[in-house]
Amino acid sequence: MAPPRASTVKAVGAGARVAPGSGSRLPPNARARGSRRATRSNAQGFDDYVQELQKDMLARCEAADGSGSRFRVDEWERERGEGFGRTCVMEDGDLFEKAAVNVSVIRDVLSAERASAMSERGRGTIDRAGGQPYEAEALSLVFHPRSPLVPTLRADVRRFRVGDAAWYGGGCDITPSYLDEELAREFHRYWRSVCDRHSPEAYPKFKAWCDRYFYIPARGEHRGLGGIFFDDLEEGGGEAYDVSAFARDFSSGILDSWLPLALEANRQEFTKEQKEWQLLRRGRYVEFNLLYDRGIKFGLGGGRMESIMVSAPPSVKWRYDARPEDGSEEDRLLRVLSGEPREWAA
Amino acid sequence: MAPPRASTVKAVGAGARVAPGSGSRLPPNARARGSRRATRSNAQGFDDYVQELQKDMLARCEAADGSGSRFRVDEWERERGEGFGRTCVMEDGDLFEKAAVNVSVIRDVLSAERASAMSERGRGTIDRAGGQPYEAEALSLVFHPRSPLVPTLRADVRRFRVGDAAWYGGGCDITPSYLDEELAREFHRYWRSVCDRHSPEAYPKFKAWCDRYFYIPARGEHRGLGGIFFDDLEEGGGEAYDVSAFARDFSSGILDSWLPLALEANRQEFTKEQKEWQLLRRGRYVEFNLLYDRGIKFGLGGGRMESIMVSAPPSVKWRYDARPEDGSEEDRLLRVLSGEPREWAA
Repeated sequence: MAPPRASTVKAVGAGARVAPGSGSRLPPNARARGSRRATRSNAQGFDDYVQELQKDMLARCEAADGSGSRFRVDEWERERGEGFGRTCVMEDGDLFEKAAVNVSVIRDVLSAERASAMSERGRGTIDRAGGQPYEAEALSLVFHPRSPLVPTLRADVRRFRVGDAAWYGGGCDITPSYLDEELAREFHRYWRSVCDRHSPEAYPKFKAWCDRYFYIPARGEHRGLGGIFFDDLEEGGGEAYDVSAFARDFSSGILDSWLPLALEANRQEFTKEQKEWQLLRRGRYVEFNLLYDRGIKFGLGGGRMESIMVSAPPSVKWRYDARPEDGSEEDRLLRVLSGEPREWAA
Repeated sequence: MAPPRASTVKAVGAGARVAPGSGSRLPPNARARGSRRATRSNAQGFDDYVQELQKDMLARCEAADGSGSRFRVDEWERERGEGFGRTCVMEDGDLFEKAAVNVSVIRDVLSAERASAMSERGRGTIDRAGGQPYEAEALSLVFHPRSPLVPTLRADVRRFRVGDAAWYGGGCDITPSYLDEELAREFHRYWRSVCDRHSPEAYPKFKAWCDRYFYIPARGEHRGLGGIFFDDLEEGGGEAYDVSAFARDFSSGILDSWLPLALEANRQEFTKEQKEWQLLRRGRYVEFNLLYDRGIKFGLGGGRMESIMVSAPPSVKWRYDARPEDGSEEDRLLRVLSGEPREWAA
C-alpha cells in the first residue's frame, strides 16, 4: 500500500464546513483535509486505514523535520495470539528530538479479566467470562520536539471489535513547556471544528474528558493544555452521529492540528535555560505515563516494553523542588496547569 | 542533637565479630563501626536515632564528595496528622551527581484501608477497621553518582508502631551501570557479615527477598545487583534474634557498605559513551520506581511529591530498543541482570 502522494497532501478540501478564522496559523487546506480523506477511505478496513495513515504520517514528518533524519521502521509479531505491529521511531532529528508513530493490529481471544473490565464499562455484548475472539487496531504517536518552544504532541486512535460490536477511543493533546496562548487557541479551535462537523456536543465533552484524564493528582497539575479525548464510542450505538466517520476524521486530522503550529514555533531561537526547563517538564510527562496512564498499565500485562516506552522523552531531568520565579514565563505556564482548565476554543 | 564527631567516624570498632577478608576494599573499621554505634544508641528512641544518623550521613557524604557541594536541608511539616520530615539533597557534586537523604517522623491514626492491608500481611494486633494511632519513622537515601563506574546506592529503614507492637523494614542495594564483580562481592560480603552477627538465616533470606523485589517483570530484568531487603520484622515477634538491634546495626552500616567501594571506583576515568549508557540505565531505575515500587505507590496517597520524587535520577535518557553489542561490557551487565541472581557472598 503506497502512502498518499503529494497531490493528496496539497489538496484543498472542498468539503470543509468550517471557514478558517482570520489570522489562523493553520492553513485552510489543513482544516479541510481530514474530512476529505475520511470520506475517501470509509470503505477501507480500519486495519488498512491505520497502516496507510501511519505511512502518510512518516513521510510528512520526515519532510517537516528537514534534517534528513529518517524513521527506523521496526516490524514485530506478537508472541501470543495473532497480531503484528510497526513501531517507527525517529531520534535526533531537527524538529523532532524524538518522534514515534506506532501501529498494532491484534486478533486474539478475550481473557476473563479484560472481558469483565469491559463489561463493567458498559459494553453489554461482551461475555464477562471471556473467551470471545476480538480484533483491535491502534495507531499512537508522540512527538518530543527539540525546541522547548514547540509543544509535545501525543495522539492515538483505537478500534476494538467483538462480534458485531465495535468501539472507538482516542485523543490528541499538547504538552507545552511554555505558554503560547495563541497556539493553544488555534489547536483547540482546530479540534472544535473537526468535532463540530459530527456533533455540537462532541468537542465540549471530549475537551473536558481530556482535561480530566491528563491530570497528575500528586502534583495537582494538568499535564498539558489538553485537546480532546474519547472512549467507548460504539458503532451504531447511542451516539447521534456516525462514530466511525468521526474516528477517521479525527485520525486524519492529527498531524494538521499540530504541524503548522509546530513549524512556526520552531522558527524561534531558544536559550539553554529554556531547554533545561523543558527537560524538567518532561519529568512530569514520564510521571504521568508511568504512574497513571491506563494504556501503559494495560500494555505492561503482555505488551512489548520497548513499544510502550517508545513514548518516553529522549532526555529528562529531575531537580529537587525546582520552582520558577514568580511572574516568569515558566511560572505563567505552571499557573495555568495548576488552575481550572481554560476554554481555549470559546 | 549534634552529629557524631570525627572521633566516632574514625573509631576502630572493638566489637567486630567478622574479620575482614584479605584484600578487602572495605577497611576493617568500616565493618565494625555499625555494630559499635548500634550498641551505643540502643536506648535512644528510633525517631532520635534516624535523625542523628541522617546528620552523620550528611557530614560524611559532603566530606567524601570533596567538591564543596553542600546538602540543601528542607524541613517540612505534614499537612494532615502530626509529623515532620527533613529532605536533604545535594545536586551537582563531584562524586554525587545527586544525593538525597531523607527522614520522616509521623504520628497519625490508621485509615481503614491501610489497617486492612497491614492486617492481611499478618500484623495481628492491627484492627482492620482502622482508627488506631500509629508512629512511623523512616530514613531513606539514594545516591546517584556522576561516574557511570560507581553504582547507584539505595537504602532505607522504617519502623512502624501501633500500641505495643512495632515492625521494622528496610534494605540496601546497588544498581550499577557496569559490572564490577569484585565490588559486588565486597558489597554482599559486607551485608552478610552484618546479618550473620544476628542470625545465620538473615542474609540468605534478605538477599533473596531483595532479588525478588527489585525486578522489572516487563523487562525480564533485575534492576541491579541487589543487597538485602527485609520487612515485617516484629519486635519481640517470631524472630530468634533482636530485630531492633539488627535494624540499628543495619542502618548504621549503610554508608560503610558503599562509600569505600564508591570512592575507589570513582578514581577511574570514564568515557562519554559510558556516561550515555548510565543515562539509559537510569531509565530502568525510573521505570521500576514509578511502575512497581510499593513505597512510592504508598506515598502518592498523601505524601509530599517532591520528597517522593527526590529519588529520581538527575538526568535520564530513553532511546528506542537500545541494545549493547554482544560481548561488550554493557552486554555483560545485562546478561547478569537478566539471568538468575548470583550468589555474590558465597
